[in-house]
Amino acid sequence: MTTAIDLFARHEQLLQRALSAIRERSYWSAYPENLKAYGENGTLSVADGKAAFDAVLDKPFALEQPATDGQVAGERSPYGIELGLTYPHADVDVLLHAAQQAMPAWRDAGPDARAGVVLEILARINARSHELAQAVMHTSGQAYAMAFQAGGPHAQDRALESIAYSYAEMTRHATEATWEKPQGKRPPQRMTKRFTVVPRGVALVVGCNTFPTWNSYPGLFASLVTGNPVVVKPHPAAVLPLALTVQVAREVLTEAGFSPDLVTLAPEQPGEGLAKVLALRGEVRIVDYTGSTEFGTWLERNAPQAVVFTEKAGVNTVVLDSTDDYRGMLANLAFSLSLYSGQMCTTPQNLLIPRDGITADGEPKSVDDVARDLAAAIDALLGDDARATALLGAIVNGGVLERLGSAASYGDVVLASRTVAHPEFPDATVRTPTVVRLDAGDRDTYLKEHFGPVAFLVTTDGTEASIDLLRETVREHGAITAAVYSTDEKVLEATEQAALDAGVALSCNLTETVYVNQSAAFSDFHATGANPAANAALTDAAYVASRFRVVQSRRHLPGGDDPATPG
Amino acid sequence: MTTAIDLFARHEQLLQRALSAIRERSYWSAYPENLKAYGENGTLSVADGKAAFDAVLDKPFALEQPATDGQVAGERSPYGIELGLTYPHADVDVLLHAAQQAMPAWRDAGPDARAGVVLEILARINARSHELAQAVMHTSGQAYAMAFQAGGPHAQDRALESIAYSYAEMTRHATEATWEKPQGKRPPQRMTKRFTVVPRGVALVVGCNTFPTWNSYPGLFASLVTGNPVVVKPHPAAVLPLALTVQVAREVLTEAGFSPDLVTLAPEQPGEGLAKVLALRGEVRIVDYTGSTEFGTWLERNAPQAVVFTEKAGVNTVVLDSTDDYRGMLANLAFSLSLYSGQMCTTPQNLLIPRDGITADGEPKSVDDVARDLAAAIDALLGDDARATALLGAIVNGGVLERLGSAASYGDVVLASRTVAHPEFPDATVRTPTVVRLDAGDRDTYLKEHFGPVAFLVTTDGTEASIDLLRETVREHGAITAAVYSTDEKVLEATEQAALDAGVALSCNLTETVYVNQSAAFSDFHATGANPAANAALTDAAYVASRFRVVQSRRHLPGGDDPATPG
Repeated sequence: MTTAIDLFARHEQLLQRALSAIRERSYWSAYPENLKAYGENGTLSVADGKAAFDAVLDKPFALEQPATDGQVAGERSPYGIELGLTYPHADVDVLLHAAQQAMPAWRDAGPDARAGVVLEILARINARSHELAQAVMHTSGQAYAMAFQAGGPHAQDRALESIAYSYAEMTRHATEATWEKPQGKRPPQRMTKRFTVVPRGVALVVGCNTFPTWNSYPGLFASLVTGNPVVVKPHPAAVLPLALTVQVAREVLTEAGFSPDLVTLAPEQPGEGLAKVLALRGEVRIVDYTGSTEFGTWLERNAPQAVVFTEKAGVNTVVLDSTDDYRGMLANLAFSLSLYSGQMCTTPQNLLIPRDGITADGEPKSVDDVARDLAAAIDALLGDDARATALLGAIVNGGVLERLGSAASYGDVVLASRTVAHPEFPDATVRTPTVVRLDAGDRDTYLKEHFGPVAFLVTTDGTEASIDLLRETVREHGAITAAVYSTDEKVLEATEQAALDAGVALSCNLTETVYVNQSAAFSDFHATGANPAANAALTDAAYVASRFRVVQSRRHLPGGDDPATPG
Repeated sequence: MTTAIDLFARHEQLLQRALSAIRERSYWSAYPENLKAYGENGTLSVADGKAAFDAVLDKPFALEQPATDGQVAGERSPYGIELGLTYPHADVDVLLHAAQQAMPAWRDAGPDARAGVVLEILARINARSHELAQAVMHTSGQAYAMAFQAGGPHAQDRALESIAYSYAEMTRHATEATWEKPQGKRPPQRMTKRFTVVPRGVALVVGCNTFPTWNSYPGLFASLVTGNPVVVKPHPAAVLPLALTVQVAREVLTEAGFSPDLVTLAPEQPGEGLAKVLALRGEVRIVDYTGSTEFGTWLERNAPQAVVFTEKAGVNTVVLDSTDDYRGMLANLAFSLSLYSGQMCTTPQNLLIPRDGITADGEPKSVDDVARDLAAAIDALLGDDARATALLGAIVNGGVLERLGSAASYGDVVLASRTVAHPEFPDATVRTPTVVRLDAGDRDTYLKEHFGPVAFLVTTDGTEASIDLLRETVREHGAITAAVYSTDEKVLEATEQAALDAGVALSCNLTETVYVNQSAAFSDFHATGANPAANAALTDAAYVASRFRVVQSRRHLPGGDDPATPG
């Protein structure tokens, strides 16, 4: 048996590097994002991943859990193919009991052993990145390259980041201390103290449809490494990526001598509302959730026994003032609006532009000019169907299509959405983004989230009004991202001030190949916890520090005035 | 003007030492607890403190706040003297608006400047420790020496501890970073990123009657140093210690060029329920509370816009199994039960003893023996009235007296409470503790908190049953402290395991001059957050990390392939 401490030794260097990275926050990544970097040293190639994916289809998913009381029908791919999977459904009482039973040994193993085990889990997940990419693609609708990167190495980087924060917090105190308090002429008071990291209890991770691994991994790994058993409740339409993850975790836990029931999958029957059932259980002391504002807010208010981390809806906003790289700005925005058909919590929705237009490359551009040029940039980016599908992926569900269908009724359509034929998956629904022109007065429309490929070009009284609107939008309705384009340092500073006031990450003048939708692990914080779109950043110390507690025991040492036996 | 950065330089060495102390958790203290260490270098002596205290009495308290809309009648001393004080009452709308207006400049000053200011506040509070001791004594009823130590230097140490944790968390990330991502043969993506600590919003501190400073300072200083304006809502019977604290804070803030409205006092009219009013305000984003389980639980459930830290009721438990220092054990327990008449959240309540008795110094002792000997130890400790009052202090309020009056009806009285005449304050109510014998079956009585000088000697089926009962008591009803006496290493280990399971700090075999009621700043954690007595430890990283957020801004740097101008 490979012990947990062997595993810690195997991965300690990586952990140390990650600990530096979370302090420095310059560029670092642990897991290669290049698709071709895989296929050797025990890692699956693109073809291996496809074969592994094909091998799990059309049968019950292989997951032996003690609480199984039936099977749940699996998901259908947004690319139109049947996956033919079923998953084991769990009896909640038995599942939670098993999780609790597994906890003391996991707690007693200590931070190093737990870190060793979770880093091994992550290493094995990394090796199967191309298999996970297929699973993410065929549940989220992401195009393959994005499913691989975001669902594979980027998600793994975020997991490692949360492990590093957790490890730093768990080990920030001495595990033992001698306390010796002077007492004047009397002998000192002397005590020995032991400090133990103890878990809160069972952790519930509620996955989402669009980023089943990326949004779930930080909470899952932070809870697990800090000693908590984790119950993973996947989105009913995106089970497979988390089922594979749970499978790997259980395999490694078992090999290292721990109960596999420290990580379990809890898929739900249609209409079961299992997230609600689990969140209300007294055993559940941590909840991580990504999804609708409605259910996120419900969780925040109705599970007081647990610490609840939520990422909810937001209204991402861009201030357009001026640019010295008009073409770069348009290309960058076109890409941001198109990537995964805007089905990202980070996609911009509202582009705020002065009614009198902007200055671009020293020339005035009217709102009509910008509208036309942005539409042209998107058309140019998505003109070729094969290239377009590689960027857009597939529409994940009917809700997105409905919102897209309604968008044209809100204002003047600057760019209509177009249906793209997928060269490989004819049944996939692929749609380009629409851009609709609104005025600042149309608050009822643009001050809510229209998740999907819907963007609004909103005319305002000027840049100052745009900045005020950005501040108000984020404060009242939340946002994960914000951006500004300006050649005027004063405008950039005023927008930064608004972003600080409202509590949102700001990207300034993105004209190259970094996009506002992207956040890089170990450098960018994803969400802030400071506005209504999320009650925590993912990942930072506040995200991990309350997942465990320190419990101490103290005893007297022999009096300080007792001379030691001469040696 | 002394700038905030000057103040940071003045106190930086102290902060650095505190930062080491919170890691090492061995003995350290910043502020002398010796009463005689004060009186020089600008600090008030005992007599100075008394004079300063006398000078504030019998008039409106000098606190100029913008929101004042009337005066609140002040408190009456548990020692029976009238203080004759009134305090300014605040209009909530105006008060919160003023607090919010003060926030941006405080945020923009940054962690070092804020740390400099709060450490100067603390230094000035320390210099006035003997004045605060009078204020704490005449509101909490603590005896002078305890009011001085717990309300003065020990509270200041806890404040410094929370400042150190906050500073460590605020500065754990780089404030700026260059991010340079390789792009194969293309030039790297290069960005510069700025990370800013931003406050959550207005922080509310709700003080308690018995430890107005000690229990309020960690939250107050953690919130302030992380950028949040703090509104202090004192207990109506313990306003003066916090009024003095707010006075000092406003003075230092003003001198350093910040708005004094970053720290305000909000005393309440009788029946106003101001804590509830404030806690429900959208502007209030942090709540720190010490008090009843009922209101603490209400806060946890009804202020979802805020992060809520509560310390509530608990049932502190001691397992008696065996000892090789019977006399030391009895003396230690007698002191713990007597200190401040048991009016501490850390005082033991339930002493669990096997029905067949214990082994002491190698001899069997029956329950009757132990009951008699414990009663004798308490009598011996409190036999002299002057010495007794110096230990007991005064009964803080009628609720304590009521509970004491009911105790005799619950079981066999092992030791009756005695009324002690106070040599200096004839109107003070001074009472010795009562010990009542119960059986493990009397769960309805001993499984709730009887705050005050009421202890139960509870007979069980044996030590194993006692340990199980400890675990159950803490899990279900909470506890701040637990203790065990045993000469058997297996019993100690089993009790440690139970303490880890239930999440409570354990003291083993205290027979000298350290008491289970005491927790030392920088070494002992006070509360754990892992059982119902408190939802957080006071102080650790989890207590501070979510009091602020990090907001980032990123911009491109010129491309990496642009050769720099030759120098």
